[in-house]
Amino acid sequence: MTQHDLESLRTQVDELNLKILQLINERAEVIQEIGKIKEKQGVNRYDPLRERHMLDLLRENNNGPLSQSVVDHIFKEIFKTALNLQEDDHRKALLV
Amino acid sequence: MTQHDLESLRTQVDELNLKILQLINERAEVIQEIGKIKEKQGVNRYDPLRERHMLDLLRENNNGPLSQSVVDHIFKEIFKTALNLQEDDHRKALLV
Repeated sequence: MTQHDLESLRTQVDELNLKILQLINERAEVIQEIGKIKEKQGVNRYDPLRERHMLDLLRENNNGPLSQSVVDHIFKEIFKTALNLQEDDHRKALLV
Repeated sequence: MTQHDLESLRTQVDELNLKILQLINERAEVIQEIGKIKEKQGVNRYDPLRERHMLDLLRENNNGPLSQSVVDHIFKEIFKTALNLQEDDHRKALLV
């Protein structure tokens, strides 16, 4: 293992970061669409059953090396920021 | 927009979640490799300059809808858990 290997691994991390960035933005776009439907239906955006379902599905498909508690933690942060985005949209909608 | 659309959008979110799960696990594997090299070199795992570089690259490539502060927040959580994973490996290495 050399400095060259380290640079090559870091390039891999950079590429993975950009792919993750793209996917969390795509996810946010879909969540915005869901928010619009819920808005029309007049139902609450936060749905603990739906969140439970998503975490269960992740648990069933997690082959590591990240532990489930770490995966839960990261995704709860992603869920939270998605909800905030919906709230922002809601506030903007109220202002127009 | 109907209940059917909502279900279809939720399926999209589930699929995106699984892709994100796969990528953060792939990323964790590469980070473990980096940790092993740094271990041999005897250098500190936490590298604030490298973290700054990664966040800058994400900023340059973020086309939204997630704001940069949200992207920073999610990735800092991902960085943190990756470091913990390295520390776990380090502790295991010390025990054998």
